[in-house]
Amino acid sequence: MKKLRIGLVGAGRMGAFHAETIEKRLSGAELYAVADPVSGAAEKLIHTLGSSAKAYDNPLDMFKDSGVDGVVIASPARTHAENIIRAAQNGKAVFCEKPMAVTIEEADRVIQTVNEYNVPLQVGFNRRFSKDFKSAHHEIVQGDLGTPQLLRSLTRDPVLADPAPVPEWTIFLETLIHDFDVLNYLNPGALPIEVYAVADALVRPDFKERGFLDTAVVTIKYDNGAIATAEANFQAVYGYDVRAEAFGSKGMMTIGSIRESNMTRYNKDGVSYNTLRYDQHLLHDAYVEELASFVNAVQNNEKTAVGGEEARMALLIARACIESVMQKKPIQIEHTVSNLV
Amino acid sequence: MKKLRIGLVGAGRMGAFHAETIEKRLSGAELYAVADPVSGAAEKLIHTLGSSAKAYDNPLDMFKDSGVDGVVIASPARTHAENIIRAAQNGKAVFCEKPMAVTIEEADRVIQTVNEYNVPLQVGFNRRFSKDFKSAHHEIVQGDLGTPQLLRSLTRDPVLADPAPVPEWTIFLETLIHDFDVLNYLNPGALPIEVYAVADALVRPDFKERGFLDTAVVTIKYDNGAIATAEANFQAVYGYDVRAEAFGSKGMMTIGSIRESNMTRYNKDGVSYNTLRYDQHLLHDAYVEELASFVNAVQNNEKTAVGGEEARMALLIARACIESVMQKKPIQIEHTVSNLV
Amino acid sequence: MKKLRIGLVGAGRMGAFHAETIEKRLSGAELYAVADPVSGAAEKLIHTLGSSAKAYDNPLDMFKDSGVDGVVIASPARTHAENIIRAAQNGKAVFCEKPMAVTIEEADRVIQTVNEYNVPLQVGFNRRFSKDFKSAHHEIVQGDLGTPQLLRSLTRDPVLADPAPVPEWTIFLETLIHDFDVLNYLNPGALPIEVYAVADALVRPDFKERGFLDTAVVTIKYDNGAIATAEANFQAVYGYDVRAEAFGSKGMMTIGSIRESNMTRYNKDGVSYNTLRYDQHLLHDAYVEELASFVNAVQNNEKTAVGGEEARMALLIARACIESVMQKKPIQIEHTVSNLV
Amino acid sequence: MKKLRIGLVGAGRMGAFHAETIEKRLSGAELYAVADPVSGAAEKLIHTLGSSAKAYDNPLDMFKDSGVDGVVIASPARTHAENIIRAAQNGKAVFCEKPMAVTIEEADRVIQTVNEYNVPLQVGFNRRFSKDFKSAHHEIVQGDLGTPQLLRSLTRDPVLADPAPVPEWTIFLETLIHDFDVLNYLNPGALPIEVYAVADALVRPDFKERGFLDTAVVTIKYDNGAIATAEANFQAVYGYDVRAEAFGSKGMMTIGSIRESNMTRYNKDGVSYNTLRYDQHLLHDAYVEELASFVNAVQNNEKTAVGGEEARMALLIARACIESVMQKKPIQIEHTVSNLV
Repeated sequence: MKKLRIGLVGAGRMGAFHAETIEKRLSGAELYAVADPVSGAAEKLIHTLGSSAKAYDNPLDMFKDSGVDGVVIASPARTHAENIIRAAQNGKAVFCEKPMAVTIEEADRVIQTVNEYNVPLQVGFNRRFSKDFKSAHHEIVQGDLGTPQLLRSLTRDPVLADPAPVPEWTIFLETLIHDFDVLNYLNPGALPIEVYAVADALVRPDFKERGFLDTAVVTIKYDNGAIATAEANFQAVYGYDVRAEAFGSKGMMTIGSIRESNMTRYNKDGVSYNTLRYDQHLLHDAYVEELASFVNAVQNNEKTAVGGEEARMALLIARACIESVMQKKPIQIEHTVSNLV
Repeated sequence: MKKLRIGLVGAGRMGAFHAETIEKRLSGAELYAVADPVSGAAEKLIHTLGSSAKAYDNPLDMFKDSGVDGVVIASPARTHAENIIRAAQNGKAVFCEKPMAVTIEEADRVIQTVNEYNVPLQVGFNRRFSKDFKSAHHEIVQGDLGTPQLLRSLTRDPVLADPAPVPEWTIFLETLIHDFDVLNYLNPGALPIEVYAVADALVRPDFKERGFLDTAVVTIKYDNGAIATAEANFQAVYGYDVRAEAFGSKGMMTIGSIRESNMTRYNKDGVSYNTLRYDQHLLHDAYVEELASFVNAVQNNEKTAVGGEEARMALLIARACIESVMQKKPIQIEHTVSNLV
Repeated sequence: MKKLRIGLVGAGRMGAFHAETIEKRLSGAELYAVADPVSGAAEKLIHTLGSSAKAYDNPLDMFKDSGVDGVVIASPARTHAENIIRAAQNGKAVFCEKPMAVTIEEADRVIQTVNEYNVPLQVGFNRRFSKDFKSAHHEIVQGDLGTPQLLRSLTRDPVLADPAPVPEWTIFLETLIHDFDVLNYLNPGALPIEVYAVADALVRPDFKERGFLDTAVVTIKYDNGAIATAEANFQAVYGYDVRAEAFGSKGMMTIGSIRESNMTRYNKDGVSYNTLRYDQHLLHDAYVEELASFVNAVQNNEKTAVGGEEARMALLIARACIESVMQKKPIQIEHTVSNLV
Repeated sequence: MKKLRIGLVGAGRMGAFHAETIEKRLSGAELYAVADPVSGAAEKLIHTLGSSAKAYDNPLDMFKDSGVDGVVIASPARTHAENIIRAAQNGKAVFCEKPMAVTIEEADRVIQTVNEYNVPLQVGFNRRFSKDFKSAHHEIVQGDLGTPQLLRSLTRDPVLADPAPVPEWTIFLETLIHDFDVLNYLNPGALPIEVYAVADALVRPDFKERGFLDTAVVTIKYDNGAIATAEANFQAVYGYDVRAEAFGSKGMMTIGSIRESNMTRYNKDGVSYNTLRYDQHLLHDAYVEELASFVNAVQNNEKTAVGGEEARMALLIARACIESVMQKKPIQIEHTVSNLV
C-alpha cells in the first residue's frame, strides 16, 4: 500500500514529536511537508530529522500542495479550527491536536466542513490510544463495570514555566479537555447534563488578576446518573500525572501510573522508584498509536477512532466550565439535536 | 494506674466491637456497664463477651452510676448529642461515635455542656488513628507537602442492605462526615469556606422519591485556596473502600488500601489479591487506637485527640452539603467566632 | 473459661513482647510468673508491665509451681530443649520459641518427653500465623497452586549489631529455621530429601575466621520434585524483610511486604514509602496470633497448630545445611520412620 | 547517514520480529536480505512485511552478498557460532541471538574470528536493553547498592508446547543463559567461581528419561563474595515472567513486572490485573533497543554494548551447570587468561 504523505502544521514541541513518529515510527506514512510561520522552524525540524520533506511558511500553501494526502495539525489551539477547515476544503484528511476548536460555533463549522468535503477527521485525544484507558473502556463497553456511578479523571502537568503567554481558560480548553473526553469515553453513550467548576491560581497566585488559572476541579453530572470529577493542576513536582478511576454497580477500575520503570529501590530511607516527567514519555506509545490509527483509517477508508462529535462533546463541557466559573454556579448543558448527531 | 471503668451505650454492631476492645484489647480500661433500650441486648452482649459488666435498659440510669468513669456512646446518630449532654452533666468522660450531633445547634449545646461540666470529650473520627492517615497528617504538618492545593477523600461502603430504615441525609451526616474530617485533618489550620454537593440514589433509584441518597460528590473550597472533593457510595461490591489523596506545592500523598493481605496470586487469569469487606477489618487497629487514646487522655488529664470543635467543623460541611443539594447551588460557610474557638 | 496461667522463661527482647501479649493482648491467659536467671530481669519486666506476676531466678523452680498451667519459653536457643523437657516433666503445656532444639538427638528427646507426659507443645514458627503465609498455605492445600515446583523463602534482618556473641551456625539454626518451616508449610506433605548450602560472612568478613556466617543460600529438593531456595542475610539496611514465593503447575503466589503503611509519597525525587524495621512490627499480629492459638488449643484440648514433628523437620534441613557447608557438597536427608511419625 | 543494510538469518518467530523491527521500527537500518534454508520461509516473511528484501536459501550465500553491511542471526542456537564465523569471514558486522555458542571451544573460535576479521559483534542479551535492568545496572555501577551480596534472576516461559524437539540442556544453554548474563550484569566486574545446579522435568516428567529438563535452580558464587540464584521453568501459566533482585550492603533493587497495563480491576472477587503472555510483548522495547544499539554502534564505529566476552562468561556458567547436574556436585570455574580478556 502506498505510504500516506503527511503535511505537518507546526514545528514546535508536539509537532516535532509527531514528525519523528511519521518519519521513524510509522511504516504506512511519510513526512512530505512541514509548515510553520516561524521563520526557519520548518527547515530546522526537517534537518534535525534528516528528512527530505518540503518546508512551508504558510500552512494554507501546504494545504494546496497536491502531494499532501493528509495533514497533522499541531499549531496553537486557537488556530486549530481554521486550519482544519482550510485543509478540509482542499480535500485533505485531517489529524488535529486537541482541542478541535475553542468555541462551539467553531466546532460546528469544523464538523460541517469536514462533512461537506467528506474528509476524514481525527482529533488528538491520545489517552484513548493508551493501553490503560483503552482496556478500561473496552471492559466498560462489555459491561464489566455495570452502570457507571462515579468517575474521575485528572491531569497534572509537571512544571509551570511562564504563565504570561498562557491564553485565558487554557486549563479547561487545552488541559481538562483531555479529562472531559476521558470521562465521556469511560461512560460510553451517556450525555453530560450539568457542570460545576471551581478554579484558582494556586501555583502562581501572582498571575490570578490577569485571569490566569492553574488549578481546577470540575463536577459533571451525566444523564445516566453518573457523577464525575475532573481535576487539573499545572505543577506536580513529582512528574506528569494522568490517571482515572471508574466506579460502577459491578466494581471499580483504576487507570494510569506515573512509574518510570519496573525497578524499585529499597534503601535506608525506605522504598522508592522513579517517575515519568514528560507527556511524551508517559504517553509515548499512545501518541504513536493515535497517528498509526489515523493513517490506517485513511488508507482503508474507515471511520477514524475519535472524530468531530467526540471533540465537540468534550468542548461543550469545557465551555460550561468557563460559564460556571464566571457565574459561580452549576451550568446545565442543553443537548440540541446537533449535539447528538 | 487504676483501670478506667467504661459504661457503653449501644449494644449494636459498633457497640459490640467497642465492648470487645474495652474488655480484651485495652489494658487500661474495663467494661463496667452496658446500656441498650432494646430488651435483652445489653445482657446478650455481656454474656457473649464472658464479661461481668452490669446491664442497663436506660442509658440515663447508667450515666448516674457512680461506678462509671467514662462512657462510650455507640447509639443511633440522632441520639448522640443528647447522650453526650446527659453523660457530661453526670461528670463522665465521653467518647462518642461520629457524628457528635446532627445540627449545629445541637453541636453548640454539646460543646457548651462539656465545657461547663469540664469533662473530656472525644469524637469517633477513627481515620485519624489509622497509621496511613496519621503519617500523612504528620508529614503535612511538618511541611513535606508544601501548601495543600487539591485534596480528595472517599468512603465506599461494601453493601447496601435495606434502604428503608436509613434516615434522611445519612450520606452526609454519617458517612461523608468522616471524609470531611479527613479533609480538615489533611489541611490543618485551613477553614472550609464553600461547599457544593450533588447526590443521587444510583444504587437504589427506587428509594429516591423517599429522599434516600446513596451516592454523593462534594466540592469544598478552603480559605488557603485548597480545593477538595469528597465522594461516597453505599455499595462497592469489591469491599470497604476508604482512601484519600493530598496534593500540594511539594508533591502528593496517597492514603489507604483495600488489600486484605500481602499474598498475591498469579494464575491463568492474571494477577489478583483479596480485599477487605468490612470496616472493622479495614480499620481494626484504628478503632482500637482511638479508644486507647481516649482512655489514655482521660487517665492522664490530657486533651483528647479529636474533640467537639473538630466534630462541629465537619458537621458544618455536612450541613452545607444538605443545603447545597436542596438549593442546587454552592453554599458559603460563615465562620462566626464560635466556629473558631 | 478459666484463664490459662502462664509462666514465662526469659525476660529478654522476645520474652518481653510475649509477656506484654499475655498480659494485654490475650483475654484467655494471664501472666502468672516470669523466670530469668539474670538477676533482677524478671522483676524489672513485671514492673514495667504493671503486672502482679511472680518472679523466679530459676526456670526449674517455676516449672514446679502448681499455679502455672503452661509455659512460654523465650530463653536462648541452646536452652530450649532442656527447658521444654523439664516443663513437660512437670506436666506443663509448652510454647517454645524456635528452634525447639539444636540437634536431632535433642529434638527426639523433646518429642519423646512431651509424648510420654502427654503435654501440648507448640513451637514458635510465627509466620504460620501471619495472614499472608496462612492464606497462601490454605490455597495451596486446596489445590490452587497445583503441584509445587519452585519455592523460595527469605529472611533478612535489619541490622547486625555485634557478631561476637552470635553462636556458631546461628544463621541456619535460628534464622533460616523459619524459612525451612515456611518452605515445608508451603509444600504440604512433601519431604525434603537433599540440601545444598553456601554461606559466608559478607556483612562482617572480619569475623569469618571465628566461624561467623551472616549470609546464606540454601537449595532444597523435595520428594515431590519441588526445588526450593532459602536465603538469609543479617543486615538489610532497608528493614526487616521476610518474603516467600511459591510456584506450581497452576500459577504462583508471592507472600510478604516490608511496607510500613498504606501512605505513599510522591515528590521531586519520585515515589517512596516507609518500611518496617523490626520483627515485632512486621510480624506483630502473627506473634500475638500464635500465642492466642496456643492458649486456645490448651484450653480446648486440641492439637497445637505446629508441634514437635514440624520443628524436627525444619531442624533436619538446618543440620543438613551445616553438614553441606562443612563438606562443600549436597547432603541427602534420610527419613527414618521416626521422622515421619 | 546511510542506512545499514541488514541480512537476516532465520525467518522464524524471533527472526520475524527482528525483521519487522529493522523494516519498521529503526530509521537507521533497512532489511536488505533474508536467508532461511526452509523452502519459501524467507520469501513469505518478506512478503508479509511488504518488503523488497532479497531472499536466500543459504545464509552463506547471503554472507557473500556485497550489498549486506551487517547480519542479524536468528537461526537455531546450535548454528549460531558457525554463522557468526562465516559472516565475520565475509567482513560483516554481526548481531547474533543468544547463545553465541554452545561450547567454550566454539565461543573461543567465534571471539578469535571476529577479532581477526575485526568485525563488530553483538550478542542478543536483550534484558540489558530493558529500562528496568538497565537502570538497576546503572545504579549498581555508581555504587548505590554497595557491595552486592545476594542476587537472583529468573525466567519462566509461559507455555511448554512440545518437549520432543527441545535439544538437550536447552534450559541452561538457551533459557538460563539470559539469567547468567543478567547476574553478571548486576554484579559488574565480579567473576563467577562456583556453580551448583539442580534440574528436573516437573512440567513434563514423561520426557525426563530422554534427558528433557524444564525446571532448574542454580547457585553461583562470585569472587566478590556475592551468592546468586538463577531459576527457570518452562510453563508459567500466568505469563512470561522475567524478574531479578539484587541485594547489597546499601540496600536492594527489584527488577521486572509481568503487568500488562496500568489498568486494575476491583470487583466482587477482589482486585486483579492482566499479565503479559509473550516475550515479544514483555520485552518489546528491549528487543528494538538492542538492534538500535547495534546499528548505532556499527554506524559510528563504536564498541557494541554486549560482545563476545560477555557471552562467553555466561556460557561458562551454563556449561558448569551441565557439569554440575551430571556430577551432582558444585563445579569450580577456572578463569584462564583468555576468560578475562
